Amino acid sequence: MSKFVISVMEGDGIGPEIVKEGIKVLEEVAKKFNHTFEYKYVDVGGCSIDKFGVPLTQETIDTILSTDALFFGSVGGPKWENLPHHLKPEAGLLGIRKALGAFANLRPAKVFNELVDASTLKREVIEGIDLIVVRELTGGIYFGEPRGFSQDRKKAFNTMVYTDEEVRRIAKLAFEIARQRRKKLTSVDKANVLEVSQFWRDIVIDVSKDYPDVELNHMYVDNAAMQLVRNPKQFDVIVTGNIFGDILSDEASMLTGSIGMLASASVGGKVGLFEPIHGSAPDIAGLGIANPIAQIESLAMLLKYGLKLDKEAKCVEDAVSLVLKMGYRTPDIATNSDKKVNTAQMGDLIAKAI
Amino acid sequence: MSKFVISVMEGDGIGPEIVKEGIKVLEEVAKKFNHTFEYKYVDVGGCSIDKFGVPLTQETIDTILSTDALFFGSVGGPKWENLPHHLKPEAGLLGIRKALGAFANLRPAKVFNELVDASTLKREVIEGIDLIVVRELTGGIYFGEPRGFSQDRKKAFNTMVYTDEEVRRIAKLAFEIARQRRKKLTSVDKANVLEVSQFWRDIVIDVSKDYPDVELNHMYVDNAAMQLVRNPKQFDVIVTGNIFGDILSDEASMLTGSIGMLASASVGGKVGLFEPIHGSAPDIAGLGIANPIAQIESLAMLLKYGLKLDKEAKCVEDAVSLVLKMGYRTPDIATNSDKKVNTAQMGDLIAKAI
Ligand SMILES: CC(C)[C@H](C(=O)O)[C@@H](O)C(=O)O
Ligand SMILES: CC(C)[C@H](C(=O)O)[C@@H](O)C(=O)O
Repeated sequence: MSKFVISVMEGDGIGPEIVKEGIKVLEEVAKKFNHTFEYKYVDVGGCSIDKFGVPLTQETIDTILSTDALFFGSVGGPKWENLPHHLKPEAGLLGIRKALGAFANLRPAKVFNELVDASTLKREVIEGIDLIVVRELTGGIYFGEPRGFSQDRKKAFNTMVYTDEEVRRIAKLAFEIARQRRKKLTSVDKANVLEVSQFWRDIVIDVSKDYPDVELNHMYVDNAAMQLVRNPKQFDVIVTGNIFGDILSDEASMLTGSIGMLASASVGGKVGLFEPIHGSAPDIAGLGIANPIAQIESLAMLLKYGLKLDKEAKCVEDAVSLVLKMGYRTPDIATNSDKKVNTAQMGDLIAKAI
Repeated sequence: MSKFVISVMEGDGIGPEIVKEGIKVLEEVAKKFNHTFEYKYVDVGGCSIDKFGVPLTQETIDTILSTDALFFGSVGGPKWENLPHHLKPEAGLLGIRKALGAFANLRPAKVFNELVDASTLKREVIEGIDLIVVRELTGGIYFGEPRGFSQDRKKAFNTMVYTDEEVRRIAKLAFEIARQRRKKLTSVDKANVLEVSQFWRDIVIDVSKDYPDVELNHMYVDNAAMQLVRNPKQFDVIVTGNIFGDILSDEASMLTGSIGMLASASVGGKVGLFEPIHGSAPDIAGLGIANPIAQIESLAMLLKYGLKLDKEAKCVEDAVSLVLKMGYRTPDIATNSDKKVNTAQMGDLIAKAI
């Protein structure tokens, strides 16, 4: 019997509705495996702006740093879109990633057998996709200095920068992950044009010397965007920088047709952050019809990567599969022959399946 | 009867083979419409490195600037991959784009009816796609300064920078193109994170005031990468910066399944550059089996955008369609029931169809 402290960030839009279902499921896990979870609720993003005037406070950071993992809903919405840069909800998300030192964003793109037909790609192209994008998350053009506007406002600029250490640690982590999977790593860059990419590539090659059992190849980012469409099954682990990873991981998730179902883990720092890859979906917020599965999959990642509770993680994943197999679907993934349920019902079903 | 001077750059890999077929077709156009084309052959990329030691010479630039349009094959190959940055074949391509002032890269993604099934996407998702990516081509992170490495080689960086003028002229051009099409423009950026993107967005909005008849919307680049997979038909014209355009246009072309068939035009400068979007395909170079259609489609763009010969351009496009309708295919797009032809035969057929 172990005790864990989890910080919980419900956030904006559909965040609160789906995080609630995640906690419901976690409580079942607690019972079944004899754990105790204590929750510390925090605000980041729009909800923090509304309460404190800023998207992230130092107190929130401190609270999160005192816990074992951060279970994260979603941030953002039209209400806050016109605020200046450093006051946008997104600044809260970037700020907490940085504060936690969560330099690696793991984004698995997998296909749920039951949902293969929801993809716009042909069944034979996507059936069995099992790839993971390892995105560098606290460097690159997202954080590079200098950034801003020229004094006369006739020019604006950002800097894509990587240090040796930043590239080395994400490369190592990606090789470690590849080693536990199909042992194939694709590093994505734009080394034919950018010096920062050439630098990235050279260091990845250097790190590869410690992983002779992993097959490494390099791909330009434009080609990677094409290859994901042409033959996504060729990939096992993809490692890349912050903005390329942002773009490619979203593309990869959409290929599966299961975007409402996919989770991500941001790790490598003091405390891991676990969130759905979808956004806050303000258009359906409050209606009780949002699909909580991505949030519940994030919970599985939290258990696995955040608390090293592999058995418990697997149990959550199996529960989701079972409920899908039984034919239950929220509106976003339902076809006519499915049993339609709302957010809370889906949460109940999965909790019961634990 | 008019006379035009065309600079011709055959280039590396399959370049020479397919450019030859383009010229074959152009000579038929000359006969039919009573034009004279004079050719000036130049070298850029690997072939220039082999001859002159650098990927682009001032003499080549001067020659091209003295002509009416540049018909461009492809550059690059493993032979030159390990050269330093400024000596790579790609540096020649970037150099000539910049020297010509060709700031707008037009990349139509269309589906050839006869090839719908070559796509990895479902027929109903892609049938009738007709979108064009307008990519800024001489600015952004490709050319931004400062760039390079720190002295101790512990850090590398590039700068994504846009000036007011650069954004304004590409935005105008994109609105003009949208106006002649379905009047829908999507501007793609990452304004929730990057100042340079916020700047881009503000100027696009400013320019939009002169185009009240065109519907403008904004999309983050990660979302655009998803939406292209989810529902590509929602797009008419996409305008975006250099690197986002590089990634998204390649993704968009691959959706159609017709990547060996698509062309691009780089315009806005003194002389336009017209080239296939595919690369130099060193693996099949010299075998005489490469698909010349993208190169011939580039010819159609050259006639249309470079020489303002709309009728002639349409004639080339119709000839390609006709030959496809008759069932002729190069190996890359052939299925069992097709009539298989090689590069030269495909060129002959299209030339005859003129
Ligand atoms: C909201 C935004 C700042 C964020 C990012 O770009 O990192 C999001 O797109 C993501 O991928 O988590
Ligand atoms: C070869 C490379 C420099 C080039 C680019 O990135 O612009 C290519 O990918 C393209 O899109 O034309």
